[in-house]
Amino acid sequence: MADRSAKAEPKWVYAFAAGYVDGRANMAELLGGKGANLAEMASLGLPVPPGFTITTKVCDAYYAAGRKLPEGLKPQAEKAVQLIGDEVGATFGDVDRPLLLSVRSGARASMPGMMDTILNLGLNDETVEGLANRSGDRRFAYDSYRRFIQMYADVVLGVDHGVFEDLLEDFKNLNALSSDTDLTADNWAEIIESYKQAVVDTLGRPFPQDTSEQLYGAIAAVFGSWQNARAQTYRRLHDIPDSWGTAVTVQAMVFGNLGERSATGVAFTRNPSTGANEIYGEFLVNAQGEDVVAGIRTPQSLTERARIEAGEEAPSLETLMPALYAHLVQVFQRLETHYRDMQDVEFTIENDKLWLLQTRSGKRTAEAALRIAVDFADEGIISQSEAVMRVNPSALDQLLHPTLDPEAAKDLLATGLPASPGAASGEIVFTADDAESERAQGREVILVRLETSPEDIHGMHAAVGILTARGGMTSHAAVVARGMGRPCVSGAGALRIDTKAGTLKVGKRVLHKGDVITIDGGTGQVLFGRAKMREPELSGAFATLMTWADGERRMAVRANADTPRDARQAREFGAEGIGLARTEHMFFDTERILAMRQMILADDAEGRREALDKILPMQRGDFEALFEIMVGLPVTVRLLDPPLHEFLPNNSDEWPAIAADLGVAVERLRQRMTQLAEFNPMLGFRGCRLAILYPEVPEMQARAAFEAAIAVEKRLGKSVALEIMVPLVAFRAEFTAVRDMIVRTAAAVEKETGGKLDYTIGTMVELPRAALRAGEIAEGEEGAEFFSFGTNDLTQTALGLSRDDAAPILEAYTQKHIFAVDPFVTIDIGGVGELVRYGVERGREAKPGLKVGICGEHGGDPKSIDFFEKTGLDYVSCSPYRVPIARLAAAQAAIRARGGWDDSADN
Amino acid sequence: MADRSAKAEPKWVYAFAAGYVDGRANMAELLGGKGANLAEMASLGLPVPPGFTITTKVCDAYYAAGRKLPEGLKPQAEKAVQLIGDEVGATFGDVDRPLLLSVRSGARASMPGMMDTILNLGLNDETVEGLANRSGDRRFAYDSYRRFIQMYADVVLGVDHGVFEDLLEDFKNLNALSSDTDLTADNWAEIIESYKQAVVDTLGRPFPQDTSEQLYGAIAAVFGSWQNARAQTYRRLHDIPDSWGTAVTVQAMVFGNLGERSATGVAFTRNPSTGANEIYGEFLVNAQGEDVVAGIRTPQSLTERARIEAGEEAPSLETLMPALYAHLVQVFQRLETHYRDMQDVEFTIENDKLWLLQTRSGKRTAEAALRIAVDFADEGIISQSEAVMRVNPSALDQLLHPTLDPEAAKDLLATGLPASPGAASGEIVFTADDAESERAQGREVILVRLETSPEDIHGMHAAVGILTARGGMTSHAAVVARGMGRPCVSGAGALRIDTKAGTLKVGKRVLHKGDVITIDGGTGQVLFGRAKMREPELSGAFATLMTWADGERRMAVRANADTPRDARQAREFGAEGIGLARTEHMFFDTERILAMRQMILADDAEGRREALDKILPMQRGDFEALFEIMVGLPVTVRLLDPPLHEFLPNNSDEWPAIAADLGVAVERLRQRMTQLAEFNPMLGFRGCRLAILYPEVPEMQARAAFEAAIAVEKRLGKSVALEIMVPLVAFRAEFTAVRDMIVRTAAAVEKETGGKLDYTIGTMVELPRAALRAGEIAEGEEGAEFFSFGTNDLTQTALGLSRDDAAPILEAYTQKHIFAVDPFVTIDIGGVGELVRYGVERGREAKPGLKVGICGEHGGDPKSIDFFEKTGLDYVSCSPYRVPIARLAAAQAAIRARGGWDDSADN
Repeated sequence: MADRSAKAEPKWVYAFAAGYVDGRANMAELLGGKGANLAEMASLGLPVPPGFTITTKVCDAYYAAGRKLPEGLKPQAEKAVQLIGDEVGATFGDVDRPLLLSVRSGARASMPGMMDTILNLGLNDETVEGLANRSGDRRFAYDSYRRFIQMYADVVLGVDHGVFEDLLEDFKNLNALSSDTDLTADNWAEIIESYKQAVVDTLGRPFPQDTSEQLYGAIAAVFGSWQNARAQTYRRLHDIPDSWGTAVTVQAMVFGNLGERSATGVAFTRNPSTGANEIYGEFLVNAQGEDVVAGIRTPQSLTERARIEAGEEAPSLETLMPALYAHLVQVFQRLETHYRDMQDVEFTIENDKLWLLQTRSGKRTAEAALRIAVDFADEGIISQSEAVMRVNPSALDQLLHPTLDPEAAKDLLATGLPASPGAASGEIVFTADDAESERAQGREVILVRLETSPEDIHGMHAAVGILTARGGMTSHAAVVARGMGRPCVSGAGALRIDTKAGTLKVGKRVLHKGDVITIDGGTGQVLFGRAKMREPELSGAFATLMTWADGERRMAVRANADTPRDARQAREFGAEGIGLARTEHMFFDTERILAMRQMILADDAEGRREALDKILPMQRGDFEALFEIMVGLPVTVRLLDPPLHEFLPNNSDEWPAIAADLGVAVERLRQRMTQLAEFNPMLGFRGCRLAILYPEVPEMQARAAFEAAIAVEKRLGKSVALEIMVPLVAFRAEFTAVRDMIVRTAAAVEKETGGKLDYTIGTMVELPRAALRAGEIAEGEEGAEFFSFGTNDLTQTALGLSRDDAAPILEAYTQKHIFAVDPFVTIDIGGVGELVRYGVERGREAKPGLKVGICGEHGGDPKSIDFFEKTGLDYVSCSPYRVPIARLAAAQAAIRARGGWDDSADN
Repeated sequence: MADRSAKAEPKWVYAFAAGYVDGRANMAELLGGKGANLAEMASLGLPVPPGFTITTKVCDAYYAAGRKLPEGLKPQAEKAVQLIGDEVGATFGDVDRPLLLSVRSGARASMPGMMDTILNLGLNDETVEGLANRSGDRRFAYDSYRRFIQMYADVVLGVDHGVFEDLLEDFKNLNALSSDTDLTADNWAEIIESYKQAVVDTLGRPFPQDTSEQLYGAIAAVFGSWQNARAQTYRRLHDIPDSWGTAVTVQAMVFGNLGERSATGVAFTRNPSTGANEIYGEFLVNAQGEDVVAGIRTPQSLTERARIEAGEEAPSLETLMPALYAHLVQVFQRLETHYRDMQDVEFTIENDKLWLLQTRSGKRTAEAALRIAVDFADEGIISQSEAVMRVNPSALDQLLHPTLDPEAAKDLLATGLPASPGAASGEIVFTADDAESERAQGREVILVRLETSPEDIHGMHAAVGILTARGGMTSHAAVVARGMGRPCVSGAGALRIDTKAGTLKVGKRVLHKGDVITIDGGTGQVLFGRAKMREPELSGAFATLMTWADGERRMAVRANADTPRDARQAREFGAEGIGLARTEHMFFDTERILAMRQMILADDAEGRREALDKILPMQRGDFEALFEIMVGLPVTVRLLDPPLHEFLPNNSDEWPAIAADLGVAVERLRQRMTQLAEFNPMLGFRGCRLAILYPEVPEMQARAAFEAAIAVEKRLGKSVALEIMVPLVAFRAEFTAVRDMIVRTAAAVEKETGGKLDYTIGTMVELPRAALRAGEIAEGEEGAEFFSFGTNDLTQTALGLSRDDAAPILEAYTQKHIFAVDPFVTIDIGGVGELVRYGVERGREAKPGLKVGICGEHGGDPKSIDFFEKTGLDYVSCSPYRVPIARLAAAQAAIRARGGWDDSADN
């Protein structure tokens, strides 16, 4: 024992006070997150209540010794308590000016609420009177004391808190008091006696009156709470090692309720809703922090400006305590300069002295995030690159769509998945045809389906929003809706849709066709009736940040767009071309699908050609419109991709009418449908396989594109950079076969028109084999001139997981932590990503400088974009509404790739 | 001109005669295939008619000069002609003993029938009399002359051969002669006059009488035929470069028809049907080669033995010309020793002199191939390794199944694809249930379906053969039938099946249920009635060769077997364990499918467990039976793999009965089916995904396997090496989740039984991601302990091609030369193969010595097996009936891998 005390004791305790810090800052490992933060604020000279932190080493020692505090701790702690007392002019255990302390846990990583906290430590039968005298509020003093007993007995002594609650209830019943606020100081004093008796009854010993005993008991209890069940579970779920241990921070209590020169408040250094550079917050005179939150008293504004705006009578802090307000403003500036971000601050004024309790980066809306980032850069606090890094690209989504007014009342019907952002109100329709005809009569409709299929495309176009009862975030409805920028809620399982009856049941409510509902594709909510909306407002900060982002960006950003409307939207959002024009989406139009079906039902090439001749001028028209909008920019036209049965009606009720339209027997239609039916359409007769078996189709499509290009060039004097893309190639021979058809068609069109075409032919890399054999596919002059990764299909094939069927699997896998993230939302870097990397490397090895992009859904996902930047892609292409997100994400990825940023965006 | 002749002329001409060869042998590039072969035979001292070859360089020169023979050729050719004359005792152009020549093409690669040939060159109005005198057969001489004129005029002079045919017809009509054989020598002489007149009339110049002019004309014409349309097409189709050119071989004509001491014949040096070491062949006295083929005269046997066996009266060559026969036997021995293979020989005897016209490796049956290879090795001509290399593994298929007696009459109904070898006769049934019930009554049935599905499994088992109207070589019917060793003809498109009416229409014929048909799965033929069969006979040579093959083999060969019957068959064929036991195949049994359906319709884990409890004892019984048969060998049990909807009835007519059996409402059944319906079942809710969502299932299956293993060990004192395989893993976390369930179950069974289990847990690598992340999946003690490549699914996913839907695509792609070979039959080495390689490399890098096998259809394909040997797999697993093929192919692959063999098997 003597030996042990002779050894140089380790430093167990680190003290802090405004302008003074024991040891270095940034010692989170030793001091825990909270301790390190307090030390940092103190070292800035900010007025934090003084205190000290007991290191995580003590936690190790505590457990190593079988839950006993090391002996060397006490002398160090005593000295530190003395120091605190000196700072605040009080003495621990002193009857006249008692020093009260808080004892809190603080692990290296935040574990909110998992471990224990003790407040008002240092109160006993004597010091409570000192507190009463000092505060001039005896009731407050005794209330504080009874709270302390309750908390301490529960946490440190292990007395069930139910015991105290019962005593209080009994007392109130006996005295016919209904609320705690009805109790007087004497009432509390009486209750305290019963509490102390309860402790004696339970433990056989009295509640400790020795404040030192209180302190070490509390410290030991907080260390002990590191191993409570809640904390253990939390650590397991968040991968926090048991071995880290917690630190314990002991800090002086300060009181905002010591009279009219005391107050407590919360503030944001800027407006967290708009981002405006104005202090935003509220305070209460003679109150404790919890009173601000409790909402019993109405808080006052900090600034005069805010007071006037809100029409409040109670004075602002600015006028009430001008010097303290000035000090606060000064502190806020110091905080912003130091932390280089907008801060969310808790403060207390105790008898004209300002104490800072906590500061942290403030949460903010997307709009505010943008404005703050831009302002901070303009103010020279951060660089433009940092400003670009500060905004979470995904948050921009909020800004680009109408949203529900958060103030408005809501009549919630059901909740589904937030499949495509934006809100929309409209009348219910149950079929795509109804959507189209209602739309034609000027009505706004929401298309409600069990799930959607390609046959519903025209109805989805006509609707202002889409709601499905089945399907996940990557179901047909979700993907197409995102592509179109239509709000969509998918997989709202509570809906019972009866298309024939024309009803939508939710629980006991029955809605009919024509009833108005509102969907919010950002939250997945389905509301009854028309809800109030907010239109998107792209502020100046948005434009500024986007310009900065574009300056940082290496990859180009294109859009997936099939219609003039999408193309226009894409350009408005800054798309630099079209990365994927899905020609088949043009075929679902009512007039065209007839010709398409004729083509499919034709017996031979001649018959197919005849039907395609009808489609040619329409398709040429489509391309002309797209090319005019995108003039001067690249446009990637993908040849017909989906299996032909997608163009035929599933519902046999429709067969007679359709057969009549086509002039064939119903039997012939049925026969052809049987012939085309597939077990796995995803892996079937589609993509370049269609082109190879029915060369008439790519020939018509190439002709339409080439003729349109020449027409637009003639009209506008500028041409598009036309890129024709062959889908679903797995073998070089497939590419070669289709390329030959295209080249022949181009030569024919050039000869016929006398024009000169500017085009390249490439392929969609969407099968594992294509990625692996990319070198062969790109090699030589007649190889692919560009690659566009179709990561949707590449994910489906590499993982053997059908997007249309994945919903229940994804759900279970996410729950069971098999997937950290939906691989259809963020690219599976380990598997699919490796194929992309092979594709890029092998393609470029065979053909240096090969242009490589991506046109799957991942093209609009920030994490995936980061991967594509690292992989050296030339561009990403995404839904028009995700173009701004992609621009920002690509900029952040480029900044990160240049080094110096290893974290993702902050908020 | 003077300058040119002064230059050293290149060597244009290479002469050969028995024992004499100009230049070296093995000069196919210069001399063409035929020229080089003749030179080789000559160099062996074999009695080939003397001749010379004009090199392919002359062909180059001929075309370079605008289709003119080089000047330097003539002197060299004249000298060579002289040499020929000296050898055979005749002179070119001589009236008394005229030398007659043949002029033939000979390219480096064989192009049979594509180029021109001239025979009997050297005949004119004078030499024809010399031939008449020498042969003593004036009619023969004039007939030869008129044939020569006709051939030469056609090929060299360009006179349409119709002209001559008309003249001959006119003559016969005028003289009332019905057949060519009726014409006398004088008749031919008269016709020759009219032929010569026709040449004058057509060309304005006479038929050349100068034999040298004839010779150079013929040589030029043969060179010219290198560029005829047929030859060009053939080269394009067979990738033979135009630049190779042809050589021209000029050779003395020998005649087997110069009297009773002349003859002509063909012979195999061994029996090509059985492989017996006996000369096999026939000859005709005083005849030309074409007479043997023409079938007008009955040929005589070469050997006495064969004569007696056949009961022929006409003497054999052995007795008729004993010395020549002895010479022939000697020549055959020389040929076999030199060429180290059984030979197919053409010979002629001209006035007691033997001439060898041609020799080549003889075609043979699989049975003969085996016997000859084994005999040659026993005789010391080739090594045992060479014998193993000599037999084409695929040809063994013929030997393992009953086959149609080739002698028997056939009533052909239709032809489909030879989907699973073997022949079978039986009564037609149209449903799996009928197959089962008819079988129960002792009838042999052929199951006839439009196509089969997993629901038909029990019917396929019950049937002796399967016939489908739809589906390719890798359709469900084909794959399952091959697995079961049932003969199957698939995709017989001419069949019109009406299951309801119970009729099968082919053209105008209508067959009914119960009518007998025969199918031949080796040829794809469908016959009416019962056809005569030959049972397989595995001769001693088969066993010997297999033993040798096993000695050469590095990889083990296992079987894919799900039933005791399959397992027994597999062991008979030499399987060294089971590489894939598909547990789901055990579930389609009538009694079990009910419990399975109960499981699927259960609302919760409890309900599922209840249904699975019924299946447990049955499944345990299955495993016990398999394990007993395979005791001491490894057995890989794959957990339930297919999507659950495969266990539910497609046909809604069956729903009421099934719902009643299950005790649920039809609506509930319908609902569950809708819920389970998938767009792409191949990429859906199956494999380990089932196990993860319904852990009750793998738990039951693992328990059944473990309990069975312990029971068998108790009974037989020896255990199987149980390998439990988790299907469709893409992520390590999936494997871990399922592995945990299995390990827990094993521990429970060990505790309950007090037994000790010997098992490993591995995964089926059948998704691209699994192959790419193989390292992660295998890593560590808790990683996969073995891999089995499921190359069927790996092909489907890597190529994005559904096996069930691929038929029309494969057909078109093969026609258009996009696929050289069906990737479901022979592994796509460039794409799927690379994934296999990654899987092996990365798996073994993470876990050295990781056991790796393959259990897809490719496991029975020789070319794929060669790839698996190169990739270092430990074993292949295939259908029981392909086990011998795999054993042989694996041996050949191992020999090739050790070096020295760069070609595949010879025949």
